[in-house]
Amino acid sequence: VAAPFITLTTDFGSRDPYVGIMKSRILQRLADARLIDLSHDITPFRPEEAGFWLWRSAPQFPPGTVHVGVVDPGVGTARALLAVRAGGQLFLAPDNGLLGLVCQAHADAEVLRIERQALARAGITAVSATFHGRDILAPLAAELAAERCRFEQLGAAATPESGRLARAARGKAGEVVGAIAAVDRYGNLLTTVEAGTLGHLRQPVVTLAGRDFPLVATYGAARNGAYVALVNSFGTLEVACVCGNAAEGLSAQWGATVSVHETQAELNGGVNQL
Amino acid sequence: VAAPFITLTTDFGSRDPYVGIMKSRILQRLADARLIDLSHDITPFRPEEAGFWLWRSAPQFPPGTVHVGVVDPGVGTARALLAVRAGGQLFLAPDNGLLGLVCQAHADAEVLRIERQALARAGITAVSATFHGRDILAPLAAELAAERCRFEQLGAAATPESGRLARAARGKAGEVVGAIAAVDRYGNLLTTVEAGTLGHLRQPVVTLAGRDFPLVATYGAARNGAYVALVNSFGTLEVACVCGNAAEGLSAQWGATVSVHETQAELNGGVNQL
Amino acid sequence: VAAPFITLTTDFGSRDPYVGIMKSRILQRLADARLIDLSHDITPFRPEEAGFWLWRSAPQFPPGTVHVGVVDPGVGTARALLAVRAGGQLFLAPDNGLLGLVCQAHADAEVLRIERQALARAGITAVSATFHGRDILAPLAAELAAERCRFEQLGAAATPESGRLARAARGKAGEVVGAIAAVDRYGNLLTTVEAGTLGHLRQPVVTLAGRDFPLVATYGAARNGAYVALVNSFGTLEVACVCGNAAEGLSAQWGATVSVHETQAELNGGVNQL
Repeated sequence: VAAPFITLTTDFGSRDPYVGIMKSRILQRLADARLIDLSHDITPFRPEEAGFWLWRSAPQFPPGTVHVGVVDPGVGTARALLAVRAGGQLFLAPDNGLLGLVCQAHADAEVLRIERQALARAGITAVSATFHGRDILAPLAAELAAERCRFEQLGAAATPESGRLARAARGKAGEVVGAIAAVDRYGNLLTTVEAGTLGHLRQPVVTLAGRDFPLVATYGAARNGAYVALVNSFGTLEVACVCGNAAEGLSAQWGATVSVHETQAELNGGVNQL
Repeated sequence: VAAPFITLTTDFGSRDPYVGIMKSRILQRLADARLIDLSHDITPFRPEEAGFWLWRSAPQFPPGTVHVGVVDPGVGTARALLAVRAGGQLFLAPDNGLLGLVCQAHADAEVLRIERQALARAGITAVSATFHGRDILAPLAAELAAERCRFEQLGAAATPESGRLARAARGKAGEVVGAIAAVDRYGNLLTTVEAGTLGHLRQPVVTLAGRDFPLVATYGAARNGAYVALVNSFGTLEVACVCGNAAEGLSAQWGATVSVHETQAELNGGVNQL
Repeated sequence: VAAPFITLTTDFGSRDPYVGIMKSRILQRLADARLIDLSHDITPFRPEEAGFWLWRSAPQFPPGTVHVGVVDPGVGTARALLAVRAGGQLFLAPDNGLLGLVCQAHADAEVLRIERQALARAGITAVSATFHGRDILAPLAAELAAERCRFEQLGAAATPESGRLARAARGKAGEVVGAIAAVDRYGNLLTTVEAGTLGHLRQPVVTLAGRDFPLVATYGAARNGAYVALVNSFGTLEVACVCGNAAEGLSAQWGATVSVHETQAELNGGVNQL
């Protein structure tokens, strides 16, 4: 049987040995884990950004994958650590909104608050005040992936912090309202608007910061420098600048509202005739 | 038998999960692939830079290695994807100049245009409009490395785009003329001039942007702050600033011409006597 | 038996293929090595920073781990390469201060100067003038980890360069004096002061650049924006800004002196009464 996947999504950056040390802890407990770095450059203090990427990336991994998310400014305080089972995969993270989108997206998500006794049973006892990613989540991910530790026994059911991002919802006029959830390396603005929520809209137009953008099929469908909206390879709406940087060009802020509505052809026509 | 190597060279950066998701696709099809990141910080819109590194790095890998290059501003347009067999290794990339140097460097390079039917035979069918690295090249690399898919059957022979870099050539006066192909982390200017092309030059001098630089054996051969040229560990000429940053100090541009010629001892002597 | 760990700590950055090529060399000689990147963003020309991370990270790895450090501005000059055995692990690096702290920290550290003949016996013969990490240290790490090459036979005993960082020491008045050894991604200032050297101090206060900082247990113990000192998860003292960037806020320099002393309660009381 193939080795289990364990993914890592953190705000640790790649300058320092923090990620390497988490990997050491995992591989010492599960020598053949298939470790995948999703991102270590999540914006500090923005756990929901990590959660957005986990929500959209998880379907790219097989059942049984264990995802570890560490954006944890509250480490050392009383904040809980969560274990979530959803869509046949496991997610481990602080209870600070990081797993809000993942839990929302799965009606059958099981959410447990990880208890100290469960960690002790898994042989996880030496815990620092400042690096729970290394001391708790990394070894726990290995134990779960190795099936030496059972999800059901990690703790009691809990209600997760929802965080500052929510799945996009349909408004009264039929428009779909979401938010900018991440800005990628190219300056593309990824949103919480899922492709599947747009089916009722004919000729959809995307509004961000007071400007309208056409919905196109590919980057190649518009001239260089044009701003467009498209459904990206993660199945969500994104606003991009063809061969340019939309985040810079639009001065768009993380969390800003994005809405999708039908083209109001008559009104536009009227305006154009002035 | 040892697991096959698959290398990745992209402009995806390391901030976003794009690389991790390509690795997931590869490892789901070939669990023991030895994945090597060459670079994920190729300058966007500069596929030839990726190709330069692939050309110079490939000899550092064993026969049978599959190299994947993704710098793909044309994704979603009609640009082709290429498979190249050269030097006992395979290369997969968009047909946008990325594989120009690799093809030039191997007289026996076989170049195929990847066809949709070949992908379908390999079980590669769900293809997005914006992420062919994930949806086509990653799974195809795994299938080729696993020898479940044969190179010869990928498509018809094609002539690759040559791109904006060429191997350095000997000019009329015996000088060798190349170009800056990459700038590395230290600001060293790597060029297309191969060490093997310089054998006919006695006391070679390197000219870049109107300035001459001596050819030395190692960085340690000159004082700190001096600009020198040397044959680097990739077997090409580079211009460097000892303990400094040549790219900043010389304001050198990617693609700029670099030439190597013999010291004109008499002329220099004359000048010095003035 | 589980595959050996080999860690890499360099100043190569992640833009260029240098790290990937070292990994190729290692994996071609030891296919199942567990490669761990500790950092590739060590400040160029600062080998002691790499050594600090190796010193503090090594206990996070199992016995038999081979650590490779490459910050090597002197490559191509007469500087030696060292092999060190300490704490049941091996360390390979240039003799430029990189392994100073590791050697200081282990009274029984064995230090050998790697000899050309030993390399030849290990099949390491084609050596460039500019990339000893690839041509010597990577293959040697693989040979040592694979136990095809014995540490004792690498060369003669040597005295390592100590470098610009030393373990913190106790001063005449009982204070403990160390230095800033690394600045991490969050701007935390990591020092050479080990937790174990502070036991004799009641109510310790940390002084850096003329300012005093309280020693707290966790980041969460102070308000946002406050500067605090704490013992981090690596067991050394660090100065941090809660939810902020201490390096920027304090304009702290690498190598600057940090001292820890007892609160002078009476004096402070007197001052406060003025």
